[in-house]
Amino acid sequence: MLGHFFKKILPIVMVSSITVTGIVSGGASTQAASDTKKIKNVIFLIGDGMGPSYISAYRYMKDNPATPLMEKTEFDQYLVGAQTTYPEDEAQNITDSASAATAMSAGVKTYNAAIAVDNDKTDVKTVLEQAKENGKSTGLVATSEITHATPAAFGAHDVSRKNMNAIADDYFDEKINGKHKVDVLLGGGLSNFVRKDRNLTEEFKKAGFGYVTDREGLLNNKNDQILGLFAQGGLDKAIDRAKETPSLEDMTNAAISRLNKNDNGFFLMIEGSQIDWAGHDNDVVASMSEMADFEKAFKAAIDFAKKDGNTLVVATADHSTGGFSVGANGEYNFNVAPIKAATRTPDFMAKEIVDGASVEDTLKKYISLDLTESEVQSVKTASATKDEVKIDNAIEAIFNTRSFAGWTTGGHTGEDVPVYAYGPGKELFTGLIDNTDNAKIIFDILKKNK
Amino acid sequence: MLGHFFKKILPIVMVSSITVTGIVSGGASTQAASDTKKIKNVIFLIGDGMGPSYISAYRYMKDNPATPLMEKTEFDQYLVGAQTTYPEDEAQNITDSASAATAMSAGVKTYNAAIAVDNDKTDVKTVLEQAKENGKSTGLVATSEITHATPAAFGAHDVSRKNMNAIADDYFDEKINGKHKVDVLLGGGLSNFVRKDRNLTEEFKKAGFGYVTDREGLLNNKNDQILGLFAQGGLDKAIDRAKETPSLEDMTNAAISRLNKNDNGFFLMIEGSQIDWAGHDNDVVASMSEMADFEKAFKAAIDFAKKDGNTLVVATADHSTGGFSVGANGEYNFNVAPIKAATRTPDFMAKEIVDGASVEDTLKKYISLDLTESEVQSVKTASATKDEVKIDNAIEAIFNTRSFAGWTTGGHTGEDVPVYAYGPGKELFTGLIDNTDNAKIIFDILKKNK
Repeated sequence: MLGHFFKKILPIVMVSSITVTGIVSGGASTQAASDTKKIKNVIFLIGDGMGPSYISAYRYMKDNPATPLMEKTEFDQYLVGAQTTYPEDEAQNITDSASAATAMSAGVKTYNAAIAVDNDKTDVKTVLEQAKENGKSTGLVATSEITHATPAAFGAHDVSRKNMNAIADDYFDEKINGKHKVDVLLGGGLSNFVRKDRNLTEEFKKAGFGYVTDREGLLNNKNDQILGLFAQGGLDKAIDRAKETPSLEDMTNAAISRLNKNDNGFFLMIEGSQIDWAGHDNDVVASMSEMADFEKAFKAAIDFAKKDGNTLVVATADHSTGGFSVGANGEYNFNVAPIKAATRTPDFMAKEIVDGASVEDTLKKYISLDLTESEVQSVKTASATKDEVKIDNAIEAIFNTRSFAGWTTGGHTGEDVPVYAYGPGKELFTGLIDNTDNAKIIFDILKKNK
Repeated sequence: MLGHFFKKILPIVMVSSITVTGIVSGGASTQAASDTKKIKNVIFLIGDGMGPSYISAYRYMKDNPATPLMEKTEFDQYLVGAQTTYPEDEAQNITDSASAATAMSAGVKTYNAAIAVDNDKTDVKTVLEQAKENGKSTGLVATSEITHATPAAFGAHDVSRKNMNAIADDYFDEKINGKHKVDVLLGGGLSNFVRKDRNLTEEFKKAGFGYVTDREGLLNNKNDQILGLFAQGGLDKAIDRAKETPSLEDMTNAAISRLNKNDNGFFLMIEGSQIDWAGHDNDVVASMSEMADFEKAFKAAIDFAKKDGNTLVVATADHSTGGFSVGANGEYNFNVAPIKAATRTPDFMAKEIVDGASVEDTLKKYISLDLTESEVQSVKTASATKDEVKIDNAIEAIFNTRSFAGWTTGGHTGEDVPVYAYGPGKELFTGLIDNTDNAKIIFDILKKNK
């Protein structure tokens, strides 16, 4: 996609709605204008699929029953508003991750599956690219393949999210001012980098990047530019992850420590990718595991920003997933105890059962609950089919039924998603914004700080 | 409950979290402090059950397909944050309307079913009562019985929401400084006022209140104090409502025009009561009808506040209902056309069918869609049972399936709900607040403006 690169120059304009909805008062407006000039670094976090119900459900998880009030999540005190997420797609009015990420990275509404291209399939410039043009360092961190839709829409261009090999190529081949576009790439997706036709890990190494494949390697590496690929595809869910695999927090800290060496500052996108995957699977255990992984990464970003003073942190979601509700089936309770009783995801358990482990032993080993005979039997019945999906579904049903987690779909839903912000310029994200406003605001910040 | 009235004096303290989360910047803080003194009137609107998905779904309803961007709701530009809704109940961690309304009216977490009483069943003072003590006029407006949980928790006290007759008695019997506590009472619930043991409408009339039972009566009445009861129970849903019955906007304007005669200002609570009822019924047609009714009332409040300049308007929900999702069953669309094709609710149609109308004629009369044979047959099959609920469910299923509206429960869910604010002091509601913070902030405003 390199040839198309700057065919279309986006008008970088602050939309008037930002002025109307984004500023709380005259006092704040002046404050925001002066704050904007202080912004050296932007950390943009996306909880993929993290709609409003995920945040609320996770707060129930954080609650200490011994105290009268419900404990807060790390996100809560930074809530500034919400954003609309709809795509501009001929056939669908609920967004996918590619279209939503393009809106947030480039400020452009586009079709579902588009990776930083508009409805004419023309490349659109992203805030990561603008940051690089400005001489900043850049990074992408995810728990999915690093070539997956969300990170891809910040650092690559493609007519389809499916072309993950081409997206990996973009990360290496597309240069800005003669330099590689993304300085830090941490996530999964090794299979998109080491292929029959090309070994991008070797190419990155030759270009001076560090290359690591496990947590220890990541922690010990000293390169300023780094490619870290910790799984063939997506990383395991946090609750299933081996200690050799870094957490999203580990990757976040590794990215920040490198990018922060640039006196011109940095732009970093961090994705909690698999909140969405857990939602697609209607898996409440996995979704809460991924929320915890994402929350720690968010806290790491906030902790850095607090010390730094010149860093804007924004955290939001691209859409909600699964039609997840906090409570279901007429019950006025969301019971977190059954969710907390799991030490692995249903997916993990189903795989062990398919690989030959007994249903009873597996459930006993990974779920500290006294399961009923009928619960165990439901998994046994599924197990007889040898179908991993059916076994997974049967185990998930135990948690969903006991916790009263509701689900309406295996796909996405169209609810507005929360927006959190901290640091100079946070006021610009206040109120109800559109997903495209994120890019428009960040482009404007980058313009003012050139 | 009069004897208990002021047993417990609530400490009226601004919680420190408001300072942390509620103020966007130093500039806004000073602004807010000076603005607070300008607040003469407070209009507090509650969309019962109006969780985040209802607002988003309703925006899809407002969309004009001829324009590229999605049109906004009247609420959108006033979004300031969200609130947590959990109760303090021994058996349930998802709130009902009574507990949530007590939190918002009195600043106290309590058990589900509590009407302005705490967990010790002691009366707690409400912001409406404090406003009356301060010499302001007061009003309650709802589309449910005016004795239903939400309005009741602002103007009455009872150990249970079920005691609607006793709540009606409270409205007449409980006085503050020798005056009736609520000057304007508009809604449904005639059967709670005209009973074998007591006719409260006569008592209100003797005390100088106007008494009206239809829209014309409401518009022509000249009394400053008024009781308007427009149905035996709840009002019909807006889409089903006869022209003799006022809209929520009519009632809102009638309330404001009366209350605004008081030089000391007023406190008015307005509830879009049946967004929740539609949610309990998993009825997407009724829910969108009630959203439209509530939106017009909100706009009337905003229009008044804009002219007045000294009015704080806050709009929020008490909880979400039904586990409603915008999209379902794997489809990346929320189709509003089928919803817009209905001219009556499924409840209304089901009643006509039970009363003898033919299934085909009824569906044809009230739904401008070419229904499939199997859709018509599903209602016929239900109709054979003569069970109105089954017929209603069969008709609802047509709309839910066609629109991709998802539902997980006939009860409430625990998601945070949006908060909208306009006028002086709106900054105090910014960020993530708890439902009790609404009352704490309003008490503080009333204290400063005494």
